[in-house]
Amino acid sequence: MARLGAAVNIVTSDGPAGIHGLTVSAVCSISDDPATLLVCINRASRGYVAVRENGVLCVNILGPRHAELSARFARSVTDIDERFGDRAAWMTMPSGCLGLRGATVSLDCSVVRVLDVGTHGMFICEATHVRFGPACEGLLYFDRGFYGVTQSNAAGVEPISLSK
Amino acid sequence: MARLGAAVNIVTSDGPAGIHGLTVSAVCSISDDPATLLVCINRASRGYVAVRENGVLCVNILGPRHAELSARFARSVTDIDERFGDRAAWMTMPSGCLGLRGATVSLDCSVVRVLDVGTHGMFICEATHVRFGPACEGLLYFDRGFYGVTQSNAAGVEPISLSK
Repeated sequence: MARLGAAVNIVTSDGPAGIHGLTVSAVCSISDDPATLLVCINRASRGYVAVRENGVLCVNILGPRHAELSARFARSVTDIDERFGDRAAWMTMPSGCLGLRGATVSLDCSVVRVLDVGTHGMFICEATHVRFGPACEGLLYFDRGFYGVTQSNAAGVEPISLSK
Repeated sequence: MARLGAAVNIVTSDGPAGIHGLTVSAVCSISDDPATLLVCINRASRGYVAVRENGVLCVNILGPRHAELSARFARSVTDIDERFGDRAAWMTMPSGCLGLRGATVSLDCSVVRVLDVGTHGMFICEATHVRFGPACEGLLYFDRGFYGVTQSNAAGVEPISLSK
């Protein structure tokens, strides 16, 4: 499955269960009308509980500059305040979830259905608001490595190494 | 949604409804145990009917050399024989579906559940067999363009232009 390339996203949620954020690559477009997408989250994670109880989430599609940030949101040991860090980098979306100002796109969503399948929960979400960031760039994950797609780079896409 | 990067795959199916194949980027890993993935197909397409009736499919994860092939499988006007072309490039998987010999990975699957959501059908599939191709490479789609990830290319990933 690691050889199935995917975009890297930070999914945030806020509401009765409190604020949360986690890195998710299992996000998939489902339907155009209404704009619907799937977000898969491990049922053993705190993120699963938060999204399930809050009923809203924001998918922040990341760009190449966000590789370090995505790693921070992927570490289960890192607490929530530390994950979000500088709050000026975030804005509150209409759902109440946090949107990353520099994200390629932030898709504010309502969860319309939840299906548990094996180890993961499938959240079927309808987009309620969309916010476009400053650049049309992508951060992609393939075979356990990060790759960046940028418009300014003639080579198009380059591998990204994370600092340790 | 075009800014949500995704791997490009050719999904094949065979059985009572006959042989079919189509390009699908809406494929998403769901659960590790059992190995489960989601395949989304437009309900107005012949591929949707074929997969729904056959109950089996094979997800062929493509590499950079397959950009032209993926475009051929994406054209609704192209008939099935023309899509598959040289049959020597394909092998029959245990499910009866065709696997692409040069694919990065071929995941032979049984459909365990179908959910219709808006314009698309969500096929929840369990992988029954996996076949690894000759190279660990990826073909990615971002903002309506193709990008290739190769191991041999030091720059990692390059944009790919299709011949017209």
